Amino acid sequence: MQLPLRIDFHSGESLQSQLFEQIRRLITDGRLRPSTRMPASRVLADDLGISRNTVVHAYERLTAEGYLEMRKPVGAFVSSKVIAGGGPLPVADSPTEDDQGPTTARRHARLVFRGESHFVISPYDRPVLYDFWVGRPDARLFPAKTWQQISRQLHETHIGNSAYGHPAGLWELRQAIADHVGASRGIRTSANEIVVTHGIQEGLNILARMFITGGTPVVVENPCYLGAANVFQSHGAKLLPTEVDSRGVDVEKLPTDAAFIYVTPSHQYPTGSTLSPERRMQLQEWARRTHAYIVEDDYDSDFFYDTAPLPALKSLDRHDQVIYLGTFSKSLGAGLRIGYMILPPHLAATAISVKGLMNNCMPWFTQAVLAEFMASGAFQHHLRRTRMIYNTRRDFLVKMLSQRFGGAEIYGAQAGMHLAWQLPEEAPAAFDLERLARSYGVGVYSFKTGNSLVSGDEAEARYARSVMLGFAALDEHEIEEGVRRLAKATSAPDAAPRRTVAPEEASNAQAQEFAYIR
Amino acid sequence: MQLPLRIDFHSGESLQSQLFEQIRRLITDGRLRPSTRMPASRVLADDLGISRNTVVHAYERLTAEGYLEMRKPVGAFVSSKVIAGGGPLPVADSPTEDDQGPTTARRHARLVFRGESHFVISPYDRPVLYDFWVGRPDARLFPAKTWQQISRQLHETHIGNSAYGHPAGLWELRQAIADHVGASRGIRTSANEIVVTHGIQEGLNILARMFITGGTPVVVENPCYLGAANVFQSHGAKLLPTEVDSRGVDVEKLPTDAAFIYVTPSHQYPTGSTLSPERRMQLQEWARRTHAYIVEDDYDSDFFYDTAPLPALKSLDRHDQVIYLGTFSKSLGAGLRIGYMILPPHLAATAISVKGLMNNCMPWFTQAVLAEFMASGAFQHHLRRTRMIYNTRRDFLVKMLSQRFGGAEIYGAQAGMHLAWQLPEEAPAAFDLERLARSYGVGVYSFKTGNSLVSGDEAEARYARSVMLGFAALDEHEIEEGVRRLAKATSAPDAAPRRTVAPEEASNAQAQEFAYIR
Repeated sequence: MQLPLRIDFHSGESLQSQLFEQIRRLITDGRLRPSTRMPASRVLADDLGISRNTVVHAYERLTAEGYLEMRKPVGAFVSSKVIAGGGPLPVADSPTEDDQGPTTARRHARLVFRGESHFVISPYDRPVLYDFWVGRPDARLFPAKTWQQISRQLHETHIGNSAYGHPAGLWELRQAIADHVGASRGIRTSANEIVVTHGIQEGLNILARMFITGGTPVVVENPCYLGAANVFQSHGAKLLPTEVDSRGVDVEKLPTDAAFIYVTPSHQYPTGSTLSPERRMQLQEWARRTHAYIVEDDYDSDFFYDTAPLPALKSLDRHDQVIYLGTFSKSLGAGLRIGYMILPPHLAATAISVKGLMNNCMPWFTQAVLAEFMASGAFQHHLRRTRMIYNTRRDFLVKMLSQRFGGAEIYGAQAGMHLAWQLPEEAPAAFDLERLARSYGVGVYSFKTGNSLVSGDEAEARYARSVMLGFAALDEHEIEEGVRRLAKATSAPDAAPRRTVAPEEASNAQAQEFAYIR
Repeated sequence: MQLPLRIDFHSGESLQSQLFEQIRRLITDGRLRPSTRMPASRVLADDLGISRNTVVHAYERLTAEGYLEMRKPVGAFVSSKVIAGGGPLPVADSPTEDDQGPTTARRHARLVFRGESHFVISPYDRPVLYDFWVGRPDARLFPAKTWQQISRQLHETHIGNSAYGHPAGLWELRQAIADHVGASRGIRTSANEIVVTHGIQEGLNILARMFITGGTPVVVENPCYLGAANVFQSHGAKLLPTEVDSRGVDVEKLPTDAAFIYVTPSHQYPTGSTLSPERRMQLQEWARRTHAYIVEDDYDSDFFYDTAPLPALKSLDRHDQVIYLGTFSKSLGAGLRIGYMILPPHLAATAISVKGLMNNCMPWFTQAVLAEFMASGAFQHHLRRTRMIYNTRRDFLVKMLSQRFGGAEIYGAQAGMHLAWQLPEEAPAAFDLERLARSYGVGVYSFKTGNSLVSGDEAEARYARSVMLGFAALDEHEIEEGVRRLAKATSAPDAAPRRTVAPEEASNAQAQEFAYIR
């Protein structure tokens, strides 16, 4: 897109201010429509012959004042808040510009939040037909009938809607969770050690508030789940990324001064590896020795296929050092917003305090339905059913990829809802394939786009040719068609030039794309 | 309660360690049962002839290790987590004590959270029959029938349960909220500036993350809603409490360097005063001049009785400096856990980022039901109905208090769901009356117990004879009986000695009670 911008190098006005003003006018005049993607800062800088920093700062100011919005990792867009007809921003009785500019800017300077968020739906605005987005259950398998039956009964006793509940969550739900993790994950616990949360994400925030202050060292896996890394960093943690291989995080490389380590032992996010039994022992020993906690994120452990899963780290927690995070987002659906923490006894009271401080308590109704759903045995039944179906889909996806690409190199498929695919040599690098596939109506995801933090050049290069494919939400027909299109995309003429991009270059190009406004 | 403790002043072991060990044994042996209230630190210190600090530190360690739990403002209790039969803590495969002690302690030292929570239900464990607890709607008035009808229809389209939603909340709900605040509070806004939150409490946390870092100056009212003050302080804010009188917060006493002021202009919490029109103008002018934001907590503005309410500060927000917080906790029920923020356009993106970082998004179902409930007009109908009923109850409570106590001095009754009562001279001071009333089955609340932060000796003395009474959740029969018992309590012989306590002394005694473990 070529924007009608003209920079006057001899004007008294700064280049940045000129750029800001001209783009602002294009937006308020309606020539730049809401949700239009802006050119990358580097591209625009080259076009105009100015420095990239100038563009970055102009974009920043436009974002701060509501004209642009950042949609990472894609880039800057004209704000969807601009009236769709193209008119000016809907600020009624707005003060004069002279008045607003500096005041808003100075007030805006009060903002101290420097965190970044992550994507829960998809980083892209426009959906694709065949979307292998990660961690998404199949909505068609939601146990609607049983759920409705329980809901109908509960509506009669609507009392819970009117009042606050206990900050730790509904007692019946906490008991049902204790029973469930006892049977499925080998964890001996009680309702007293369980705090119900708005998903694992809230559990991560509670932990951050409990343990992190400026500079607190926190070990994360490399690569690591971005939603966790962002929370820790936004609270001031010093992240210590530690290498992951096919046996999970490399325990021998752990530092000795961490407050805690954040791990995904059942199905490492994003690589899908399982932490080996020996490393589990070593990890516990490391935590005991260094007085660190272990945060065990067991996000998709309800799904395992070839063998029974290893017991949770929490089940071996002889020294009260493991904090376990679980969720119903994968087994039932993220729209319920129910997860939980299982804490060592001496930490439960603090976690409950933080939870209370954050939002008082959980909503009653969904907790009550879920508690009954679990107690009735319907949850176990649902798990067995979906596990079987997802197993079939996983097998089918692996088969299709192998057929279409001549023996695909798959890892992390033994459990969970996504697998990782090491791309064949003739395919473009991960991020290029991702963009190419979208034009064919297929969603596959490079690690970075798939909510992973990949730290360091070495790791970036290593994973530049890996993509993640979620398989739970697509049926066999959809998987078949998705992979067919993927094969077509990689063999299309427009894929050809991209094949020449070396992994390192691809990785750099990608890094620039991501970084183009901070 | 006399505990069988014996301190050996000539032992090599420290007094604190002796105390810790002996209490711990009483608990694990089952002689101190779960949920038993511990003696106040001062009382125990006097009994044993040791310093209060020694007791405080022993209690702290017992709390940290899970043997005791603090239930503020009442005090320390034996943990409910100790097995109810009296056995030791349920730590299976527990390491030896020598091993556990220092390790747990050192690991416990990793905790950096120093915040305090507040009470959403009641600070007391045992309910009373006639409870004038504040901010509680009448569960019997919940619009169950309509709610169920909408729920039934929505269950058919259960799709929202399976997936994440937008971090800012369900679009339809945000639109319904924009319409509602336009009509009821004079606020011109759009769905784009609204973020749905888990109650106002979450909105306060989002603001804290946006604006507060170590030492950030934040103005609060004095007295102030404790749930807000605790959030700000836990993020490191320097609170600047500013005096409140019958016209709301005293705007002339505001400092010039605050990041924001947190106010409850419709119905000041806890005093119930309404911010006067002149002060509203002055406050906006102060914010403009000092580049501060105004956080307007409009928690119970759906209820007003004698005259129409003043428009929200946000409705006069010509300089994009007001952040408005609203909730359905009072109009429908806190168990729904739905509130919202209305932000100036330039802050919306940051608030949405923080919300996403905290817990990704809101649960779908309740949002969807509420959106339809509002769009259908049922919400307006419900508000008119409850407003009328609460009006009658308020009138009746005022009448009963006046009859029983010969012309009660009431304030803050023009709006909301609670009023404040300046106790007559013959009654005990607020906190004493509160305790006395409970023994008669009646819940009334001193400002402090009712989730208020009262700062400074002067304010403590001023409000030492004020109690809060919520009137929305009790019908006329209950109000009548509650006030009858209250009158009986104050005229009972056991009330007599307390009458001799001067307000200052009462206030000090109360402060000690509150502070007895930090």
